[in-house]
Amino acid sequence: MCPTCDASQQGVPNGTPAIPTSQNPPAINGTSSASNGLTNGSGSGHAQEHTPHNPRRQPFASVGDYLSNVSNFSIIESTLREGEQFANAFFDTDTKVRIAKALDAFGVEYIELTNPTSSEQSRKDCEIICKLGLKAKILTHVRCHMDDAKLAVETGVDGLDLVIGTSPQLMQHSHGKTMDYIRETALEVISFVKSKGLEVRFSSEDSFRSDLVDLLNIYSAVDRIGGVNRVGIADTIGVANPRQVYDLVRTLRGCVHCDIETHMHNDTGCAIANSLCALEAGATHVDTSVLGIGERNGITPLGGFVARMLTLDRDYVRSKYDLAKLKPLEDLVASAVEINIPFNNPVTGFCAFTHKAGIHAKAILANPTTYEIINPADFGMTRYVHFASRLTGWNAIKSRVEQLGLVMTDSQIKQCTAKIKAMADVRHLAIEDIDKKHQFQVKEQEMAAEPEARELDHVVEEQTKVLNGVVGEVDGREEKVEALNGEGVVVNGTA
Amino acid sequence: MCPTCDASQQGVPNGTPAIPTSQNPPAINGTSSASNGLTNGSGSGHAQEHTPHNPRRQPFASVGDYLSNVSNFSIIESTLREGEQFANAFFDTDTKVRIAKALDAFGVEYIELTNPTSSEQSRKDCEIICKLGLKAKILTHVRCHMDDAKLAVETGVDGLDLVIGTSPQLMQHSHGKTMDYIRETALEVISFVKSKGLEVRFSSEDSFRSDLVDLLNIYSAVDRIGGVNRVGIADTIGVANPRQVYDLVRTLRGCVHCDIETHMHNDTGCAIANSLCALEAGATHVDTSVLGIGERNGITPLGGFVARMLTLDRDYVRSKYDLAKLKPLEDLVASAVEINIPFNNPVTGFCAFTHKAGIHAKAILANPTTYEIINPADFGMTRYVHFASRLTGWNAIKSRVEQLGLVMTDSQIKQCTAKIKAMADVRHLAIEDIDKKHQFQVKEQEMAAEPEARELDHVVEEQTKVLNGVVGEVDGREEKVEALNGEGVVVNGTA
Repeated sequence: MCPTCDASQQGVPNGTPAIPTSQNPPAINGTSSASNGLTNGSGSGHAQEHTPHNPRRQPFASVGDYLSNVSNFSIIESTLREGEQFANAFFDTDTKVRIAKALDAFGVEYIELTNPTSSEQSRKDCEIICKLGLKAKILTHVRCHMDDAKLAVETGVDGLDLVIGTSPQLMQHSHGKTMDYIRETALEVISFVKSKGLEVRFSSEDSFRSDLVDLLNIYSAVDRIGGVNRVGIADTIGVANPRQVYDLVRTLRGCVHCDIETHMHNDTGCAIANSLCALEAGATHVDTSVLGIGERNGITPLGGFVARMLTLDRDYVRSKYDLAKLKPLEDLVASAVEINIPFNNPVTGFCAFTHKAGIHAKAILANPTTYEIINPADFGMTRYVHFASRLTGWNAIKSRVEQLGLVMTDSQIKQCTAKIKAMADVRHLAIEDIDKKHQFQVKEQEMAAEPEARELDHVVEEQTKVLNGVVGEVDGREEKVEALNGEGVVVNGTA
Repeated sequence: MCPTCDASQQGVPNGTPAIPTSQNPPAINGTSSASNGLTNGSGSGHAQEHTPHNPRRQPFASVGDYLSNVSNFSIIESTLREGEQFANAFFDTDTKVRIAKALDAFGVEYIELTNPTSSEQSRKDCEIICKLGLKAKILTHVRCHMDDAKLAVETGVDGLDLVIGTSPQLMQHSHGKTMDYIRETALEVISFVKSKGLEVRFSSEDSFRSDLVDLLNIYSAVDRIGGVNRVGIADTIGVANPRQVYDLVRTLRGCVHCDIETHMHNDTGCAIANSLCALEAGATHVDTSVLGIGERNGITPLGGFVARMLTLDRDYVRSKYDLAKLKPLEDLVASAVEINIPFNNPVTGFCAFTHKAGIHAKAILANPTTYEIINPADFGMTRYVHFASRLTGWNAIKSRVEQLGLVMTDSQIKQCTAKIKAMADVRHLAIEDIDKKHQFQVKEQEMAAEPEARELDHVVEEQTKVLNGVVGEVDGREEKVEALNGEGVVVNGTA
């Protein structure tokens, strides 16, 4: 058997038996652990070569692990709860309904709504969304308190996400309760919610600053005595880092039988990584919001998280979610909360699939997997090779020449590239500038015998000299550039 | 000794001796490993309580580790190299100089510049920046090729960062060389650069898809035979995840004596987390760019990375970097490449320190460490408590009342809060709306005996009823709301 393609050969039992959960029965877990990095990404231009009996030893490849749920997780989408806590968010009923439907069409497993006790309209909206008949289960997120629970169970939701602060900071400055009080209340509320036949999750708040023994005590109690469906770990303040998340979830996985949900804030940009590490350690559910909107600078963004998981098990992610619907969904939410999509947003940021340096452009044109871990077509997006800069290589120019249907020799293209680079040293180049450069050069071929051709060429030369006094020097270096190309190295650019 | 405050008690040797490096001698390493999560954050309103002989067992606390360089790292700032590969970047000489000076003032240890062979102006700019007399060392990033190296060493830089692709994808589609050729060339170029008395780094490209044995072979050769200052690991395509990074750096740490640099792309949002895990595993240098600009959606952002490290060792980070200069630096670069600061940017995003839900606002007003892991004042920023939404709690309103210098009883503030929440169900509230509400209520007190007061109150009541038919119901629930408050639970809001 090939060690990089057969998950059953890779399981690394590490002392603790895999614990069956409602979402994650052992039989499925054995299969779902076959998360082998890119080797799953088969069936497209981004498929990796697979040589079963001479596997390359790739440090990037995840080791299959009985605990890992990288290929077996659910998304609890909280744009309509955590997202409503975003500074700019004000969702009217119509907007909430449109967002809920778009999330459902994308394929998220759960949609979480604002506490119906927050305001009368929140309660009504909760009822309205429950009646939409969506495939996704509807949850509402309430304080672990009977008053909240009693109101929430009447709205028609499928389940309640209970939360209470457990860190010393929150116990002192937020609710003022002891762990004994929390335990007692939690068991009472859980019992009530279950008596109504609804799903129930119990989560601590600020889990990563809570006392570990307190945490394990309360989770163990709500699991064994309370019989909750899920326990939740929340990095409410965005302090957790990936290896801490792995360790805490791994420890918890050994203490409870129920599913494990994680809620990661993004204050220092680690929310996606933390969510991944939680799944690797055996968590089953991940909270997200569209574009990550939420309190402060928010939580795990849906798009970035899905992109991350796609790199680990492309087939699984594509089977669950309609990825082409991500961009319209993000546009809908961005418009509702009046923000721009960040320039660097995974997948949908304007430059996510733009390639600029010569060395990148050449390789991308030869094979997109060289510099793209995600196929933009999976999300209905396209790539763009930037060729109007001083980092441009001649391969990018060649691709543009072909795109324009022009006929030029490699030698001509290289001459053209040197001039474009010289011009780009002086000013920002528009695509039109570059195309003109090609066309002048083609004109030269077509009308070689005509005096106008030489005149045209002369115009280009003069224009270039005016723009940049160094053209001569650049031309003088062209031989060296050619020699480098002869050795198969790209003209220029960094990586 | 207290296990949470004495690093020497926490070292967890794991089979491999800590390896001394030029940047990281053993004596320093023993001290610098005292990265104990928040417990280092002393000396401000964000200091944590420290009870040495009754430590709370916090799962979030990093275990001190001989390998960890969380408190002993250098930044190689690549805005003027990787950043120039950003789709929108076109830096003229003046802009480069201003960015270089701003980076130096912030305190980064290294500034990396574009390959001087990229264009004639790139070469001249390299020389100009080297002559600025900055505290930061100046590096340039070039292909591992004698032609590049010969030109680069003449520019006056302090060192060269050599790079060559080592993944099968890049060996096939980019440069077409074998590992033997790479090794031979690397040793030749390294020897040349060292003969000029310059610092030299050798990095693979696309390290996480390279063959592990190939990687260790080439790194070992350039370390032992070549005598490089640093080897570099690059996640060129943004595929690596945190535990893989830890494992690879940890393995490499056992194979080379030199420093280890890491370069992490952000395609799926894991660059900051990956950089941190690299330091935890013994890396010494981290590549960043301002706002993370670079190829595609870029690399580890300087601000987010510094924020992450600040949560782990506040004193160390504040001693190295002038954090108040981060925002002007980001503004300078954002303006130069014509982008907006992302709404969710760590630290400087517009909502990074905005608190909205009632439960958050109450606790933040009592003690900011409840929901802030970073003190905004460290970066010269301020927090903002949002109080004009249906998630508003009465504590936020109380804070605004005090800010306005009004005198109201708690009971009045709670009445006022209920009305604000009812209004917010119907439309977006401006701050002016809220302030008017307070002022009406204060007016009522001041003119209790006067008929105008009742009239004013009546106007407010009528306005509210028109805006929202449910005011009666909200008022009807006020007793319950009061009762909840009596128990020390915030009126509403989620966390």
